[in-house]
Amino acid sequence: MFLISGPASRELGERVAKFLGVNVHPVEHRFFPDGESYIRVNLPLQDKHVIIIQTTTPNPDQKLMQLFMIAKTVKDYGAKKITAVVPYLSYSRQDKRFLEGEALTLDVVFNLLDASNVDNLIVFDSHNPDSLKTIEEKHNINVYELSAIPLLAKYFESKSYQGAFSLSPDKGAIRLAKIASDLLKGGYGYFEKVRDRKTGQITMIVKDFDVIGKKAIVFDDIISTGGTMAQAVAGLKSQGATKVGVSCTHALFMSGAEERIMNAGADYIIASDSVETAYSKVTIAESIAQKILELV
Amino acid sequence: MFLISGPASRELGERVAKFLGVNVHPVEHRFFPDGESYIRVNLPLQDKHVIIIQTTTPNPDQKLMQLFMIAKTVKDYGAKKITAVVPYLSYSRQDKRFLEGEALTLDVVFNLLDASNVDNLIVFDSHNPDSLKTIEEKHNINVYELSAIPLLAKYFESKSYQGAFSLSPDKGAIRLAKIASDLLKGGYGYFEKVRDRKTGQITMIVKDFDVIGKKAIVFDDIISTGGTMAQAVAGLKSQGATKVGVSCTHALFMSGAEERIMNAGADYIIASDSVETAYSKVTIAESIAQKILELV
Repeated sequence: MFLISGPASRELGERVAKFLGVNVHPVEHRFFPDGESYIRVNLPLQDKHVIIIQTTTPNPDQKLMQLFMIAKTVKDYGAKKITAVVPYLSYSRQDKRFLEGEALTLDVVFNLLDASNVDNLIVFDSHNPDSLKTIEEKHNINVYELSAIPLLAKYFESKSYQGAFSLSPDKGAIRLAKIASDLLKGGYGYFEKVRDRKTGQITMIVKDFDVIGKKAIVFDDIISTGGTMAQAVAGLKSQGATKVGVSCTHALFMSGAEERIMNAGADYIIASDSVETAYSKVTIAESIAQKILELV
Repeated sequence: MFLISGPASRELGERVAKFLGVNVHPVEHRFFPDGESYIRVNLPLQDKHVIIIQTTTPNPDQKLMQLFMIAKTVKDYGAKKITAVVPYLSYSRQDKRFLEGEALTLDVVFNLLDASNVDNLIVFDSHNPDSLKTIEEKHNINVYELSAIPLLAKYFESKSYQGAFSLSPDKGAIRLAKIASDLLKGGYGYFEKVRDRKTGQITMIVKDFDVIGKKAIVFDDIISTGGTMAQAVAGLKSQGATKVGVSCTHALFMSGAEERIMNAGADYIIASDSVETAYSKVTIAESIAQKILELV
């Protein structure tokens, strides 16, 4: 087995290697002035099962192309099997056609991973596990989906949030709140968006639950601009929650998301190191290491 | 036949359509806040030969991913054949392994185009036609390479450069100077880099030719940062050329390339519209249209 890390996941690669007790080999990478990536993987890979760790944000297309370049090169040099660890798989939200003619981009990404000889794909908290399953079935790739939510919940537990109410920002992600609640034991629910008929303003209402005087935590797979999350936090505070925690697996944090969420009244923001940010308080490295051990 | 243009080649798409006397259908495109592309191609494509025009710079990975998304979607909707017109195919300079373990990225790009169901590929002035041929043979794609050099030479002819000496910035690209010289009738040659042993400074010397009192034009496939071209221009001026023209097929023009070249003493810079810039004085649209008519 050979563990290599792409330019997007150097630190995570180090952490996974530590749990596995092996060395990680960072691939050589630089950019040409015109933005093209240069990749070099100078290792004896013949007949090896190669594990590539590379998340795919920020700059999703750049990170994906680097992954395709690494995987193809690894195969060119005789790798027997390729497992790609892509904690955040970009384009995961483009998993269905809402309008005729739309690119089904998650399917496009799978098609390109398949063409790059990826055999196994390890991802964390996909946006929609059912769609992921449907797309997986169209391709020659085995997908293993892991979750950072128990780790996030455990972190909150250590910060005196035991018994807090767990929430998802919409009904679609309620499985995340349920996972967290199994640990925090404070119950779980989701938000409903309610639009004021006169002002047009949207408020997010906690569905079927009273949060007055309670701590609450909102769990989401992805925080992008933080707009939804900020509304959720404001909703919780206005409905009487004493403390509000915010967490996600994949912290994309575009255009000041953190500030938007803190300004809405959040007491805490944490994320996993699926994407490396200042808010990455828990590491998914051990979960990755365990799954790798099952696969090799 | 259906002609569609990607976000990188809207204007070129219009021009090609005009020569063909058909409509061009620009695909819908926008970016999500996290940088993911959204693509929609809402057209009756069943059993059609679809021509996609999309150059792949600036931001090569982004433009390539858009192309893969368009091609796969076009195929999903039943296209019978796909011809991709990619005037500037990024990663064309990464066509050989110089060091063990390097990604052979042009091969990676071909692999992904192949997986995206591209049948024909029309490119202009590839960096190295031999390597392109070698890579083409590994894939299920027919490559048609066209040249913008005769168009560039013709433009210079109209600007009183008839009889000018045609040059390539290195021996590898001498075929370009030869093509131009067939039209301009002033002979052709190439540059050799000479390093001063004391100062380490590089001068480019016109090989086996005297340019004193003559007009000269340097032709290249790609101008990126313009460093080589600026040296060539300075070399020509110091060796006595009266006027120096500069031209290329693909004007990447990174980090002030134009200024660098003009400061070196160039009297003229022109390029094709393979990449749309202020220097795109000649259009490759008619050549594309002619090739399309041969293929459909």
